[in-house]
Amino acid sequence: TALRIADFKDSIFGVISRLARENNAVNLGQGFPDFDGPEWLKEVAFRKMQEGHNQYAPFQGIVGLRQEVSNYYKKFYSLNYNPESEITITVGATEAIYVVITALINPGDEVIVLEPFYDSYVASIKMAGGIPVPVTMHAPDFTIDRQELEKAITPKTKLLILNNPHNPTGKVWAKEELLDVASIAQKHDLYLMSDEVYEFLLFDGAKHIPTATLDGMLERTITVSSAGKTFGLTGWKIGWICANEKVTRACRLVHQYVTFAVSTPMQEAVAEGLTKLSDYLPGFVSLYKGKRDLFYTEMKNLGFEFAIPKGTYFMMVPISKKTDLKDVDYAMKLIQERKVATVPPSAFYLKSTEGEKYLRFCFAKKDETLRAAAKNLQGL
Amino acid sequence: TALRIADFKDSIFGVISRLARENNAVNLGQGFPDFDGPEWLKEVAFRKMQEGHNQYAPFQGIVGLRQEVSNYYKKFYSLNYNPESEITITVGATEAIYVVITALINPGDEVIVLEPFYDSYVASIKMAGGIPVPVTMHAPDFTIDRQELEKAITPKTKLLILNNPHNPTGKVWAKEELLDVASIAQKHDLYLMSDEVYEFLLFDGAKHIPTATLDGMLERTITVSSAGKTFGLTGWKIGWICANEKVTRACRLVHQYVTFAVSTPMQEAVAEGLTKLSDYLPGFVSLYKGKRDLFYTEMKNLGFEFAIPKGTYFMMVPISKKTDLKDVDYAMKLIQERKVATVPPSAFYLKSTEGEKYLRFCFAKKDETLRAAAKNLQGL
Ligand SMILES: CSCCC(=O)C(=O)O
Ligand SMILES: CSCCC(=O)C(=O)O
Repeated sequence: TALRIADFKDSIFGVISRLARENNAVNLGQGFPDFDGPEWLKEVAFRKMQEGHNQYAPFQGIVGLRQEVSNYYKKFYSLNYNPESEITITVGATEAIYVVITALINPGDEVIVLEPFYDSYVASIKMAGGIPVPVTMHAPDFTIDRQELEKAITPKTKLLILNNPHNPTGKVWAKEELLDVASIAQKHDLYLMSDEVYEFLLFDGAKHIPTATLDGMLERTITVSSAGKTFGLTGWKIGWICANEKVTRACRLVHQYVTFAVSTPMQEAVAEGLTKLSDYLPGFVSLYKGKRDLFYTEMKNLGFEFAIPKGTYFMMVPISKKTDLKDVDYAMKLIQERKVATVPPSAFYLKSTEGEKYLRFCFAKKDETLRAAAKNLQGL
Repeated sequence: TALRIADFKDSIFGVISRLARENNAVNLGQGFPDFDGPEWLKEVAFRKMQEGHNQYAPFQGIVGLRQEVSNYYKKFYSLNYNPESEITITVGATEAIYVVITALINPGDEVIVLEPFYDSYVASIKMAGGIPVPVTMHAPDFTIDRQELEKAITPKTKLLILNNPHNPTGKVWAKEELLDVASIAQKHDLYLMSDEVYEFLLFDGAKHIPTATLDGMLERTITVSSAGKTFGLTGWKIGWICANEKVTRACRLVHQYVTFAVSTPMQEAVAEGLTKLSDYLPGFVSLYKGKRDLFYTEMKNLGFEFAIPKGTYFMMVPISKKTDLKDVDYAMKLIQERKVATVPPSAFYLKSTEGEKYLRFCFAKKDETLRAAAKNLQGL
């Protein structure tokens, strides 16, 4: 088998999901809701199938979905993407990330990843023969040190990857922080891939600032997002890449040979779903705010102390007051002894050991699931 | 952008589909039906969505689908694949092909492709840094010369790719031909990837012999197939890889970072669809046989002479009696002047020019579409 995967292991999400099943644990591990997305969207999907949208989509994505993606970027962020030449539909954000990296990175190119990171970034970089260069978002606020970032850049650096709102920390980047990173991308002429899949999961008035809206960043920013989190249907696997024409062309050349095209009925349904986004979002956000508040209160009552996250459906919870164990061992202990599955964040770090002092909890779960988890953790 | 795609162009299917639209041509180009798959399967998909199968599937595929894939290989071919460790679900056969090649091929490795070939083979090999080595299936019967094949093999050869039933020629490989190729794979210790997506599109008593069923070939054969052709729903994008444990492990490591997982409701629907395969197939095959016979008669009446294909939904039609033009130019002429879109097969060759004397017609179309195409071609 090929050397590019020589040091690959099963992704942490697969491992934790399996352990959760085996231990019959309450699963706050992998990021997906344990309740269902909107009924009306399933009905749209069925109608689209009945209307005969069941054959190959164009490889770049169906026109309707590219148009609706363009429309929402315009409506929500005043960003103008040409659906013909600047938007590509992918099999979720994961394929989007893989395709962007494969389209841009040559063997030996360096890519800055801000750790903790979603694990597919580093895997995709390695498969392309690139070198992931980690820069740590330092606990407890998960901030970047501008000098550290700048020092990590070399003449071989080609791309910087940013995730906002941020998984696993729940951080929503402030404008000044984004500008810090953006100015470095500009100074060193880097592409910046901005993974914004949690763009609508915002609480307490937090505002999402797409990287592409920052002064001078539109051309060099490649924005990746998806429908899975927003519509609570993570298994539908519809994502997209917004990028300038040249990068889009390269991404499409890769994508057409990686998956060729994306499920047609799912694309059709998401296209119609996006037209209803403005009506849908308030209920969606307040649902998740309720869950965040509920679980945060439970965690506080259990004696965990941390700032309440302003975005995503994750909480990065410090464990040092409770245990001397590292995250991986503590996560294992909680799964086996307390029947609660979480994700140990050290899987999201290459350099720093800061992640060993945390566990990631996903609160995209039924209230009863969240309460059951808290109950199981009682008296820790 | 990355060097691995430096010489890539838009796939021929995208190009022809666009030209067909622009010229308002009857589209016998890209391989997909212009009629719909079974209503009952759409209803299954809807039911599965309503039952809540809408979150991330396990990265290797849902248990139910892997089990049903295993069941049909056993039932139809007496092949035993362990769904736990030998079957992986992918985004159509295209992702399957990409994943297998990425999992097995290192930069500099050579891969034998039998031309004409499905174009993603060569693109995937190049993206992996491998070297595609073409061996021609010679017209008019599209047979391999054993000596030519053997001469193409070097110490760097790692994998051989075979497609049976064969796109674009419609050829169903005979056992002796398969044994010829298999014995060479054994002698030189090569993996063999067998793309069998048209396995159920067989006419006139032709029998599909999966490469994995040949003596001693199970271990080294990687079988790729999909649901799209069999259920006439090419846009659902559900494929699979059957391979030994070691290769499966490598494929899953790649797949989990390329797309992570495949649409859950589509997987659920195909799983249930496969349980009905035996009842479904006779009607399916006779439908396509009718179309093949109809279109073959039309083509004969138009003065084209060729052997009737025994498999797939393609006809590789010789054009030299009609024109001195090469396939690409003649295809363009037919699209523009006759409003009939076909695929010029030279896109499927690296070495031989034999393809220039043919056009590929897809007959997976409504009878009226096939008649309209024939009418447009009247008097050629
Ligand atoms: C594709 S697995 C990921 C779900 C997720 O984003 C997470 O759990 O971090
Ligand atoms: C994914 S495009 C392919 C359809 C097809 O197999 C063909 O037209 O050859």
